[in-house]
Amino acid sequence: MSDRLKYSDAGVDLDAGARAKEALRDLIASTRDRFTLSELGTFGGLYEVPGLVPDPVLVASADGVGTKLKIAFATGRHDTVGQCLVNHCVNDILVQGARPLFFLDYLATGEMDGGVVRDVVAGVATACRENHCSLLGGETAQMPGFYSAGEYDLAGFVVGLVSKDRIVDGSAIRDGDALVGIASSGLHTNGYTLARRIVFDVMGLAVDDELIGTGRSVGDELLTVHRSYLSVFEVALQDGIVHGLAHVTGGGIPGNLPRVLPKGLGAVVERGSWPVPPVFATLQGAGDVALTEMDRVFNMGVGMIAVVDPSDTDRVIEAAGAEGVDAWVIGTVAESDGVVYR
Amino acid sequence: MSDRLKYSDAGVDLDAGARAKEALRDLIASTRDRFTLSELGTFGGLYEVPGLVPDPVLVASADGVGTKLKIAFATGRHDTVGQCLVNHCVNDILVQGARPLFFLDYLATGEMDGGVVRDVVAGVATACRENHCSLLGGETAQMPGFYSAGEYDLAGFVVGLVSKDRIVDGSAIRDGDALVGIASSGLHTNGYTLARRIVFDVMGLAVDDELIGTGRSVGDELLTVHRSYLSVFEVALQDGIVHGLAHVTGGGIPGNLPRVLPKGLGAVVERGSWPVPPVFATLQGAGDVALTEMDRVFNMGVGMIAVVDPSDTDRVIEAAGAEGVDAWVIGTVAESDGVVYR
Repeated sequence: MSDRLKYSDAGVDLDAGARAKEALRDLIASTRDRFTLSELGTFGGLYEVPGLVPDPVLVASADGVGTKLKIAFATGRHDTVGQCLVNHCVNDILVQGARPLFFLDYLATGEMDGGVVRDVVAGVATACRENHCSLLGGETAQMPGFYSAGEYDLAGFVVGLVSKDRIVDGSAIRDGDALVGIASSGLHTNGYTLARRIVFDVMGLAVDDELIGTGRSVGDELLTVHRSYLSVFEVALQDGIVHGLAHVTGGGIPGNLPRVLPKGLGAVVERGSWPVPPVFATLQGAGDVALTEMDRVFNMGVGMIAVVDPSDTDRVIEAAGAEGVDAWVIGTVAESDGVVYR
Repeated sequence: MSDRLKYSDAGVDLDAGARAKEALRDLIASTRDRFTLSELGTFGGLYEVPGLVPDPVLVASADGVGTKLKIAFATGRHDTVGQCLVNHCVNDILVQGARPLFFLDYLATGEMDGGVVRDVVAGVATACRENHCSLLGGETAQMPGFYSAGEYDLAGFVVGLVSKDRIVDGSAIRDGDALVGIASSGLHTNGYTLARRIVFDVMGLAVDDELIGTGRSVGDELLTVHRSYLSVFEVALQDGIVHGLAHVTGGGIPGNLPRVLPKGLGAVVERGSWPVPPVFATLQGAGDVALTEMDRVFNMGVGMIAVVDPSDTDRVIEAAGAEGVDAWVIGTVAESDGVVYR
């Protein structure tokens, strides 16, 4: 028998897969809410449509963590990237006025390391609890020959709910509206390929070295969890004062703000109206990156932009402050072509 | 300016990403239905909850294509794996009685090849149309240093709908119920790591060589699209005659059938009650794989199992036949421990 070919000889261990899944049971259960009907092990996850809102519209988004994962690999810290993933997805549906209902993850590895899988999913579960979102299911795939030893890819998928007449789609935006920028916590999940190039190749740093100007190690700074803006906008969305929201991800402010502006309207962003965090200055200086390129790759300290009537800016800034998050009026909607910096 | 560092120098081309996305516009639009409210480019996709069923329950599932992708890479044919992905996900929620509403995909590459991205998403869109499912969104991630040249990973997420009193959860299964096996189209999306090991390493074949016994090339046989069982079970689910459904994926019949059986009930599967397709005999023989291992890794020709009252088996077999799909009574529910082959 011993020389016959088995699945495990080819690098796939079904038992390890089953054990890893079993270890996730409590983590997943910790995110359940009263609408979650299924338990771990069913083919699909079951979620009752909450009868909370009239004319319910589902809002869904898929995303990944990108090469921020490489920082997790280099540091051996795998419990934060799942939080980044969930928060990123939650923000992507928040901008349309939706609250998250449930989340599913996709984790693909070359070889199943039960401890790593557990840490990654623990991060996902932590952020699901924080965002009041049920971790309804997921897939953990063993793909030998696809991923290098110790590496994995991670993607996620969120479904949220909004009442049809409460969808935020930017159609309420008017010339002269104010842009309120809400602080990011760091790079969030964008620009890591360039950031890694600068930090590791140009600056020659290791993850435990201090990242000049930040007072933190490279690992700590670059693993900082992508912020969720759900709690900041809870009340403002209920009150209906938000004309538009832009999640500042890949493409930066110039790539994302126009996605919510009505045709014919652009925006003027005032440089210096918010403090750009030191990490961006360090990356720009060390990498000799043009400022326009920085603007297009990184969030530059602004993770979310709310477009509101100028008389409502204080309400947004105060709501952010109540959550311990800085916010600033960073510009104005204007009849311009795209985003103009001033 | 020319020696300043740009994002594209680090391997991420935002323009190529934007162009690839634009080329997908028509493909995505071809899957829209009357409940799809959003267009390409919004942060999240909007889908109105259809008021079609009382007490609506959402059923969601995430999955990947696994190392079947390696066959796509080797053949350069990228338009089928997306179909496998969608059909796999659709089957995973069909087993709970749900029809798909919408789908999102996650495609991660090392370098953005617009043609490959288009082919992959074309496959996703084709299967979305076939399954009456809206391609609501997705993420195409450029992750240099993660994936080898010409390689990518692909995952997907489906959300479907079922009325609460129509959920199929196996609780109606009784001792003596019949097992109706529905033909698979081939390996579907499981066991590819072992299959590739046997075909390429042990047998020394290339993708254009004939796979002995199948009358087809290795590429054609191993790329065969994972079958969707949605149309086969349309009427049977409406009529409420299905006590349980098991999608035969990783783990084979012994790993998946018990997932729908009530506690205390097992199943007797009759060997020889269905014709095992030649590809499995070829793999078993060439790889000298134990039959119990084959059963656990591959679907062995049965892609879906319906558990019904013995008086209803003909209705399921005829419904499959009407879709051009073979089906057979392959065994019985019994008071046994797990799945017993006889």
